Amino acid sequence: MKKAIGIIGAGSCPPEIEELAREVGREVARRGYVLICGGLGGVMRAACQGAKEMGGLTVGILPTAQKEDANPFVDLAIPTNMGHARNVIIVHSSDALIAIAGGAGTLSEIAIAMKVGKPVVGLKSWSLEGRISQASRPEEAVQMAIQMMER
Amino acid sequence: MKKAIGIIGAGSCPPEIEELAREVGREVARRGYVLICGGLGGVMRAACQGAKEMGGLTVGILPTAQKEDANPFVDLAIPTNMGHARNVIIVHSSDALIAIAGGAGTLSEIAIAMKVGKPVVGLKSWSLEGRISQASRPEEAVQMAIQMMER
Amino acid sequence: MKKAIGIIGAGSCPPEIEELAREVGREVARRGYVLICGGLGGVMRAACQGAKEMGGLTVGILPTAQKEDANPFVDLAIPTNMGHARNVIIVHSSDALIAIAGGAGTLSEIAIAMKVGKPVVGLKSWSLEGRISQASRPEEAVQMAIQMMER
Amino acid sequence: MKKAIGIIGAGSCPPEIEELAREVGREVARRGYVLICGGLGGVMRAACQGAKEMGGLTVGILPTAQKEDANPFVDLAIPTNMGHARNVIIVHSSDALIAIAGGAGTLSEIAIAMKVGKPVVGLKSWSLEGRISQASRPEEAVQMAIQMMER
Repeated sequence: MKKAIGIIGAGSCPPEIEELAREVGREVARRGYVLICGGLGGVMRAACQGAKEMGGLTVGILPTAQKEDANPFVDLAIPTNMGHARNVIIVHSSDALIAIAGGAGTLSEIAIAMKVGKPVVGLKSWSLEGRISQASRPEEAVQMAIQMMER
Repeated sequence: MKKAIGIIGAGSCPPEIEELAREVGREVARRGYVLICGGLGGVMRAACQGAKEMGGLTVGILPTAQKEDANPFVDLAIPTNMGHARNVIIVHSSDALIAIAGGAGTLSEIAIAMKVGKPVVGLKSWSLEGRISQASRPEEAVQMAIQMMER
Repeated sequence: MKKAIGIIGAGSCPPEIEELAREVGREVARRGYVLICGGLGGVMRAACQGAKEMGGLTVGILPTAQKEDANPFVDLAIPTNMGHARNVIIVHSSDALIAIAGGAGTLSEIAIAMKVGKPVVGLKSWSLEGRISQASRPEEAVQMAIQMMER
Repeated sequence: MKKAIGIIGAGSCPPEIEELAREVGREVARRGYVLICGGLGGVMRAACQGAKEMGGLTVGILPTAQKEDANPFVDLAIPTNMGHARNVIIVHSSDALIAIAGGAGTLSEIAIAMKVGKPVVGLKSWSLEGRISQASRPEEAVQMAIQMMER
């Protein structure tokens, strides 16, 4: 079975956050992991784009019922038609998660990951007073996520 | 249609938090609102108990498939068999929420509430650096929740 | 804990089916059971209306995220934002189900009920070559549902 | 984006049904489609095994929270922790479905597919009095599914 890293973050974000997400996506694919995300825009789209540049496999677990809602860099669309409840499926489907910036939706995914014991690395994201390990660069975030999942 | 206040918090908690939850439950029922919760122990059980003392109606939206998993103070059990994804349903079903203490599961509910724009009041709970309005006493928490939902 | 009977059927239906649903709703309430349904129109609306005429309690487990989508005879709206997946929650929340006419959506609920072992009575509904017990009148349907759940 | 065919059927089945499922899986992969299923045993396992023999990509949308519950021929496990509600996600994620034999769980998936307008082909499965197109052999089932989804 393939191991997967979940990339979580907002559906729209400034260019510098997109660039971080793209680099995280490249690194996930370069290391041979499947990239899982929520399938929409912003951080999700940029991460998928980066992974595709490196020939990776990208999965979008969508809140809606239509595959067409996935960003163009999603290989495999899983439309759930379950809105924010799909966040829980993203967490269960990932062996580790990387949160890139993000708002309340991302926070809900971090919280679920904490609840079920899935490793999460933050990159300019919620730290929850030190409860979430933070990386300072994309490569470091992916490396930390892999170390935490392999432990 | 009946208006409902969601009470969120941990499935096991110290006696002083239980006492707060019980008092919140009493106040929710006294004011004529339905009490919605996750249906299990700890804060959920104490809040339901308080509401039943005042003749309120209590709803437990359970993570499991069995009504029998509800605490004995739940009038109406809604077993979802969806684990933590039921947290999202609790948020959608509540007109306002009160978070009492709580860990990562409660945080996920607070985050979903923020995401979908449902009012949340904290009582010795996550403040997220001031993003969540805090009450200092049970009566005040219920009063704030009602004011925020009626606005 | 309150016992509940789930009423399943189409969101729009001819007047004679609505009349059956209304009578089923009246009988469910007369016997003291909570009426659970999908909260929308057609059979669901008529059944809730009947139950309210007899002072019953009605619950609508909605496919959408908005309580406002519930029909006006729903006391307690549970918006799931999960589309057809809410059908599974209706089954888990009911102690027995009565299917009134209905199409593919109703069939999915009957199938889930069969899968999890919940009793189902049909009234002018899918018989699946005799696998689903059929009632010929509303009162008989409710009586059969109660007998099957108490067994 | 990759197109996907969903294979639905029981979690345990006689050897002749397994052989049909294996051949369906081979044909799905030979034609270049992703194989989506519920990730467990019986028809799901046999179909995944067939697809892997032909180098296909297999996805298991699991009812549980653990990737380890997937059969050994699943490449990509999507644990939903949502029990039978995951059936709805299987339908949304598939461009067409093939039902191989199957009981009530399979019937629920067929019904959801009918409800949302996804093509379904049956192979020794539920015909619902002619509403579901039946194939007589695995190759024919896959061919019919592809024709129906491309229409």
